[in-house]
Amino acid sequence: MASMITPDTPAAAQADIPVIDLNADLGEGFGRWTLTDDEALLSVVTSANVACGFHAGDPSIMRRVCELAAARGVRIGAQVSYRDLAGFGRRSMDVPAGELADEVAYQIGALEVFARAAGSRVSYVKPHGALYNRTVHDAGQAAAVVAGVLLAAGPAGLPVLGLPGSHLLAAAGRAGLAAVPEAFADRAYTPAGTLVPRGEPGAVVHDPDAVVARAVDMAAGHAVTAADGTRIPVAARSLCLHGDTPGAADLAARVRGALGGAGVRVEAFA
Amino acid sequence: MASMITPDTPAAAQADIPVIDLNADLGEGFGRWTLTDDEALLSVVTSANVACGFHAGDPSIMRRVCELAAARGVRIGAQVSYRDLAGFGRRSMDVPAGELADEVAYQIGALEVFARAAGSRVSYVKPHGALYNRTVHDAGQAAAVVAGVLLAAGPAGLPVLGLPGSHLLAAAGRAGLAAVPEAFADRAYTPAGTLVPRGEPGAVVHDPDAVVARAVDMAAGHAVTAADGTRIPVAARSLCLHGDTPGAADLAARVRGALGGAGVRVEAFA
Amino acid sequence: MASMITPDTPAAAQADIPVIDLNADLGEGFGRWTLTDDEALLSVVTSANVACGFHAGDPSIMRRVCELAAARGVRIGAQVSYRDLAGFGRRSMDVPAGELADEVAYQIGALEVFARAAGSRVSYVKPHGALYNRTVHDAGQAAAVVAGVLLAAGPAGLPVLGLPGSHLLAAAGRAGLAAVPEAFADRAYTPAGTLVPRGEPGAVVHDPDAVVARAVDMAAGHAVTAADGTRIPVAARSLCLHGDTPGAADLAARVRGALGGAGVRVEAFA
Amino acid sequence: MASMITPDTPAAAQADIPVIDLNADLGEGFGRWTLTDDEALLSVVTSANVACGFHAGDPSIMRRVCELAAARGVRIGAQVSYRDLAGFGRRSMDVPAGELADEVAYQIGALEVFARAAGSRVSYVKPHGALYNRTVHDAGQAAAVVAGVLLAAGPAGLPVLGLPGSHLLAAAGRAGLAAVPEAFADRAYTPAGTLVPRGEPGAVVHDPDAVVARAVDMAAGHAVTAADGTRIPVAARSLCLHGDTPGAADLAARVRGALGGAGVRVEAFA
Repeated sequence: MASMITPDTPAAAQADIPVIDLNADLGEGFGRWTLTDDEALLSVVTSANVACGFHAGDPSIMRRVCELAAARGVRIGAQVSYRDLAGFGRRSMDVPAGELADEVAYQIGALEVFARAAGSRVSYVKPHGALYNRTVHDAGQAAAVVAGVLLAAGPAGLPVLGLPGSHLLAAAGRAGLAAVPEAFADRAYTPAGTLVPRGEPGAVVHDPDAVVARAVDMAAGHAVTAADGTRIPVAARSLCLHGDTPGAADLAARVRGALGGAGVRVEAFA
Repeated sequence: MASMITPDTPAAAQADIPVIDLNADLGEGFGRWTLTDDEALLSVVTSANVACGFHAGDPSIMRRVCELAAARGVRIGAQVSYRDLAGFGRRSMDVPAGELADEVAYQIGALEVFARAAGSRVSYVKPHGALYNRTVHDAGQAAAVVAGVLLAAGPAGLPVLGLPGSHLLAAAGRAGLAAVPEAFADRAYTPAGTLVPRGEPGAVVHDPDAVVARAVDMAAGHAVTAADGTRIPVAARSLCLHGDTPGAADLAARVRGALGGAGVRVEAFA
Repeated sequence: MASMITPDTPAAAQADIPVIDLNADLGEGFGRWTLTDDEALLSVVTSANVACGFHAGDPSIMRRVCELAAARGVRIGAQVSYRDLAGFGRRSMDVPAGELADEVAYQIGALEVFARAAGSRVSYVKPHGALYNRTVHDAGQAAAVVAGVLLAAGPAGLPVLGLPGSHLLAAAGRAGLAAVPEAFADRAYTPAGTLVPRGEPGAVVHDPDAVVARAVDMAAGHAVTAADGTRIPVAARSLCLHGDTPGAADLAARVRGALGGAGVRVEAFA
Repeated sequence: MASMITPDTPAAAQADIPVIDLNADLGEGFGRWTLTDDEALLSVVTSANVACGFHAGDPSIMRRVCELAAARGVRIGAQVSYRDLAGFGRRSMDVPAGELADEVAYQIGALEVFARAAGSRVSYVKPHGALYNRTVHDAGQAAAVVAGVLLAAGPAGLPVLGLPGSHLLAAAGRAGLAAVPEAFADRAYTPAGTLVPRGEPGAVVHDPDAVVARAVDMAAGHAVTAADGTRIPVAARSLCLHGDTPGAADLAARVRGALGGAGVRVEAFA
């Protein structure tokens, strides 16, 4: 009954109001170089995937992004990566599981210092680039990432953000971690609900209006039109916005505005 | 009264029994390379200065050293450095103070993860190599290291291990951190109580018997014979043992044995 | 005699026509990151200082810049640096002379491969950032850079581009290398002819019109107005244009246009 | 006819005398760290695979190894690798072909400087670790390595050392480069002539006497006993000796001595 809905009721209990988290990669500069418009994006997103120094991000960038995120009430997540500055973490690497777990833990620990100094905490983990893509299909590396999260965070662990159906989310779930599925408003989906691979035609949606419409569709309707025109369900608790393309911050702001206009509550996942 | 002295009385209350900490640099390998005999040294020292990845030490080495240290009850310290793998942190660098503080915090945070996972904590900070030497004389960089410690550890801070009379210990003291002075049994001292610079003749004591005798002298007698033969006071709460020379672990064991034989209690600084 | 001056006479013999080289730092991206508008700048400058991987520049960037430079007839120089990606080579480092010489040689050799593959050659060497600044005053590191050039290029050596009056150019001259002095149209000069340090007010000339006018003054009049209003001589065979600021390529093009309009021949130093 | 065989006749023409090259990985330290006993190995091998800085090897190490190799008449080869200091180049990486070719060329160019300064030249190329293993099976990366060799060395190219039957040697041959097959005296072979994978029991021959005997068998008899006891042919022009294990230099010397005793001429491949 409506009378039971009060401001104190958690969002999850308010079945009528769709809720979505918005996440973006931030702090992906290094030294003299910058990539993302961190200030603008932090005015839009509710979860900041902060680079931790292995594919991008140096200690000073990490500190500044954490301070900005904390000041805006944006949740801080560790965007962990292969150790590959030259390749921006986009080259899959056969890192043995034990080493990978240690590398993941190292990155989380380094970021935690800056999150705490800013009055916040590292609240979730999301792999970057090639590690994200590989842990969709590679059970061993997915388990290694989860082992790294447990190593860094202890038994309580941290939520893991990833692709629905991925080995990563499965491994997180088995380990008792919250497995948070995300969707991409600017990526085409197959009828089976997987992403159309980047190399294929139409894999990326470039039209801003279409991206905005798809974001609302996903968040409010829990569905999206696949590449073949069929409607498929989308069970995402977060939408990933890209921050490293021209106009990215403007598009992100448009998405957030449209979500609000459509009655979607934008807030960090529980 | 003597009858009040029991085995359970804290060392600090037993004014008659000299107490000294033994510290050494550990985990100074990287990937395929090793340098120090961590297992042997961890059977001797009471404080382990663990490399944090900037001059040496990778995540897996850090984890293993923390596990070994925790298992032996050896205190874990963060051995922070300039970012300089190629130079092993031995080349002084003009790092701006803000960046240096952030780099120090990053290293402490990364190590904390492995210390905690092993059931321990990062309990102190000691700069490595060129950063150690520079913060003896450079007030700006000394303050930056202390700022990094506070950034990582919060207002409670962490003890800082360094050279008596250094800007580093002065800055630590001003910030309310415990400033722990250390001495070197294998280094010659000037009549003024400073180290004879490495370039000068006789700067390093190579004779193992002399090193052992000087260690006992320093710990039990709080004094040492300077290069000109005069006796000078030594107010050290820790002795630094070098671990990266042939026979280092054996010499460290001899020092520890001789300290015990001389009635010196070897334990981590309070 | 004037009648002996023909279009085929080398510029150096045509005393009436002032000649200047324009150099800029190029290829200063790394992996995913870019900094300079290499294509636009290569349409303006006559000498390209190509980053060699130690402060910026990866192998693929180096290859592309060399290809572009060779296609436009722009001379390729090795912009050698301290090994410091995180600090963009802007942090002075106490690198021992022997190691520094080896690092300089390594960078020149790596660039030579791409210059040759593009049908060109590495034709000169210019230190970057902190190494440039340090070798103004530090005779030991200046000699090390020259030793690195000789190591890489053999007895014939390569020209060295630097600040007039610097230890670097002096060391190059003593070694029999061509020492090429450069000037900065966007930097204020002291009455003594040295650069006003960056920290001081007015050190950098921000007004584009003033930069253009000073460039012409330096190239055509061999003089410039110092910070105190006095006129001082400028004996530069090259003008350094900065490429990493907004509008840098446009300003560079304006400078080149104004030089041409003032009757200055713009060509690579002999 | 035998009467045509004279001391001046090239080894290849002297069918009666077996000839073999001995190669080993050298210069695999970095900064403070060392791995191989370069001096001892350089007294044994005829070809030195010199690390070029991407998995190991810094400029000063590269210079010293080149000087030692040149002084002993040992041929210098570029041991090129993925960019992976932390993993010692042992982790396979999905580097795009163009980038990989550029990285290979960069390494060859850097080494060439030190080889030339020592009065020698880079005379061949051999991939290291994961790049070696991957280019056995991966045609794309094999072609990229060959493209890098051509980029660095021009149309004349350089010989490529690798595993018989590998995509690498096939690609080298197609490009007109000399494809030099090597064998491993300390590795077990399958009846098909491939190496028994490292994970399997018996993959590595640890008994020094067996290694020596197999080396002689391979070089003098052009055959070896496979893991199942069958005799298989070995068509290797070089034997790879491992240098990073305890006693490696001694074993290498024993192999060389036994080869000489068996009438095998040990010299660099033509």
